[in-house]
Amino acid sequence: MNCINEQMYGYGSSRSVIRDQYEYGRKRRAEIGDDNLFDFSLGNPSVPTPSALRDCVMSLLDETDSLTLHGYTSAQGDFNTRKAVADNLNARFDAGLGPDDIYMTCGAAAALSITFRALNDSNDEIIIFAPYFPEYKVFISSAGAVPVSVPFVEKDFQIDLDAFRATLSPETHAVVINSPNTPCGVIYKESTLLELCAILREKSAEYGHPIYIVSDEPYREIVYNGEAVPFIMNLYPDTIMCYSYSKCLSVPGERIGYVAVSPRASDASRVYAAVCGAGRALGYVCAPSLFQKIIERLPGVMPDIEVYRRNRDLLYGSLSEIGYECVHPDGAFYLFIKSLEPDAVKFSLRARDFDILLVPAGSFGAPGYARIAYCTDYDRIRRSIPAFKALFESYR
Amino acid sequence: MNCINEQMYGYGSSRSVIRDQYEYGRKRRAEIGDDNLFDFSLGNPSVPTPSALRDCVMSLLDETDSLTLHGYTSAQGDFNTRKAVADNLNARFDAGLGPDDIYMTCGAAAALSITFRALNDSNDEIIIFAPYFPEYKVFISSAGAVPVSVPFVEKDFQIDLDAFRATLSPETHAVVINSPNTPCGVIYKESTLLELCAILREKSAEYGHPIYIVSDEPYREIVYNGEAVPFIMNLYPDTIMCYSYSKCLSVPGERIGYVAVSPRASDASRVYAAVCGAGRALGYVCAPSLFQKIIERLPGVMPDIEVYRRNRDLLYGSLSEIGYECVHPDGAFYLFIKSLEPDAVKFSLRARDFDILLVPAGSFGAPGYARIAYCTDYDRIRRSIPAFKALFESYR
Repeated sequence: MNCINEQMYGYGSSRSVIRDQYEYGRKRRAEIGDDNLFDFSLGNPSVPTPSALRDCVMSLLDETDSLTLHGYTSAQGDFNTRKAVADNLNARFDAGLGPDDIYMTCGAAAALSITFRALNDSNDEIIIFAPYFPEYKVFISSAGAVPVSVPFVEKDFQIDLDAFRATLSPETHAVVINSPNTPCGVIYKESTLLELCAILREKSAEYGHPIYIVSDEPYREIVYNGEAVPFIMNLYPDTIMCYSYSKCLSVPGERIGYVAVSPRASDASRVYAAVCGAGRALGYVCAPSLFQKIIERLPGVMPDIEVYRRNRDLLYGSLSEIGYECVHPDGAFYLFIKSLEPDAVKFSLRARDFDILLVPAGSFGAPGYARIAYCTDYDRIRRSIPAFKALFESYR
Repeated sequence: MNCINEQMYGYGSSRSVIRDQYEYGRKRRAEIGDDNLFDFSLGNPSVPTPSALRDCVMSLLDETDSLTLHGYTSAQGDFNTRKAVADNLNARFDAGLGPDDIYMTCGAAAALSITFRALNDSNDEIIIFAPYFPEYKVFISSAGAVPVSVPFVEKDFQIDLDAFRATLSPETHAVVINSPNTPCGVIYKESTLLELCAILREKSAEYGHPIYIVSDEPYREIVYNGEAVPFIMNLYPDTIMCYSYSKCLSVPGERIGYVAVSPRASDASRVYAAVCGAGRALGYVCAPSLFQKIIERLPGVMPDIEVYRRNRDLLYGSLSEIGYECVHPDGAFYLFIKSLEPDAVKFSLRARDFDILLVPAGSFGAPGYARIAYCTDYDRIRRSIPAFKALFESYR
């Protein structure tokens, strides 16, 4: 007999398809050299961190007493950091947030895990929309709730609202929105969201309890051509926003982000207290102190997304021209393409023959598609085009 | 009807006795000035971070590409960091650890939460020894397990081994050891631990499953007069060590620590995988990247504990002389004293009249005692002695 939790063992020992590509890439790189491998499997920012961040660390080291700089903050986060975050959101979106609506976290994964735990008891349902970030299912199940997925509209990758309506039940406690979307880069249109909110209002009234929107927005700042990303908290009161600075500051390893509870949410102060309690219960004492102080000083620093835009334009243009069916990405740094055979896993394996590493999207809830992460260097994308062409022609 | 988790709401809205003293202290400080308040309520390191840490950050910023410095590490932690940690433990304790036995975490609270989750299913029992860190109960309950406490021997604050034996059951999956101990500063003697391990071996055989020791060691480096802190992993194979750099590097806000799974544990590789899985399930993507790289470069930096030792000697000597019954602390930075009346909460309230802030130890499983955190400046301790004397005399 053994004494470990089998579900946790499963989470720790099962190798995700992304991890599998990563391991294959490591081996293949050793054989043919990094330059010759077209690895589009990982969603790691490729734009250097803003130089302001480095300068900020230097000044903090100079100006701040070490015990303050690296000391505990309050569990919800340093007051000045929370104020800077709230002020920034208010200035940009007229959000009406105060410091006590913000809870600083170790990145978006922590923010989501904490929020799911705060909102749910056993067997509550949380709705996710395909294509979705696969870890949602892990975080939701780990909170004791049940993830239920709703399909997308194949034409434009917006939410299938009829299917959504049919999926809601009195057990539904929350709905996760992720726009710009991982893995397909689509931004949900305001019209889609308004209709979704209308359905939620109707069903909340029918069920007699709020259905919260958990808005996961790590790519909010990575949008092209000025597309508007609707600020969901302003469309629907029962909204909890989860944010990470990983992508916008290119600091994914530093684990800094926040939960923002709309002050207009039902029982907002109770929801906020439950968020604090869930953070405590999961072992999050406070978000990393130095990075909280960086956020306090740089709340409005925006990433240099020109690099990603150039990558997107080159890749989307070239692959479309070759004949691939591509979903046009308005944000994030992913291109979603239709697999050239029904089984996207086989397609991704064949792509390996051309030294292209993709991620088949079955685990994202979109079988038949593959994800290309174009957060890599422009020249590598340029050199990969003939390989994509040869892959395409291999299906003729 | 509401849609939040009531247990989490409870964790987030109940004010701990430490928090209560903190809030009182904030108000009182405004009234009488910081210099006149003898606040011994918080366990925040008071020794500045070693200058080597600041230098290390500067060199890392100079020498390391920003995407590497702040990028994702693997979920278990950067290989070089894990190797440095393992090498350091091997050099000091001949621990036989490899990099793949180490899992880097966001501090000890995360390490404990992850370990409890990895080892337990619903209703398993985890034994804790009074006096204990109150958050153990939160972390254990949150992992779905049941915390069961065992009393201490009043004479020397060692473990009551008869009570321990009587508390073990087939449902016991783990036992938490914390030495040097929070909140009383006592180091468990090797003889105590050897006997405890013998009982665990006997009961593991009887129940047909391993009973793990979870060894929580954030104060390992803070010991005085060269007292030996037995390295539990070398005494008992089924040991999982949880460590934090918060105290030894004075960086409690940065959240950096690790789990070390003994390679001699039953099913060690499965336990390690479950630890990885639990980290994933709780939303811990990786430990903060910059601080992982600092640990890689400074694995053996030791704190300047001379400051704490002087504080201890002054406080222990003076309070004993006044007449307080004090537990002699061999490590950590806490002094445990016997309350001057049966109810330590009332005693702590009366101490406020003398502007002394203590923590009554009921929530530590030791009613009738109070904790004095002497991680403060020497001069404040010196100035507090007359107040302690007046408090003592008020009970004549």
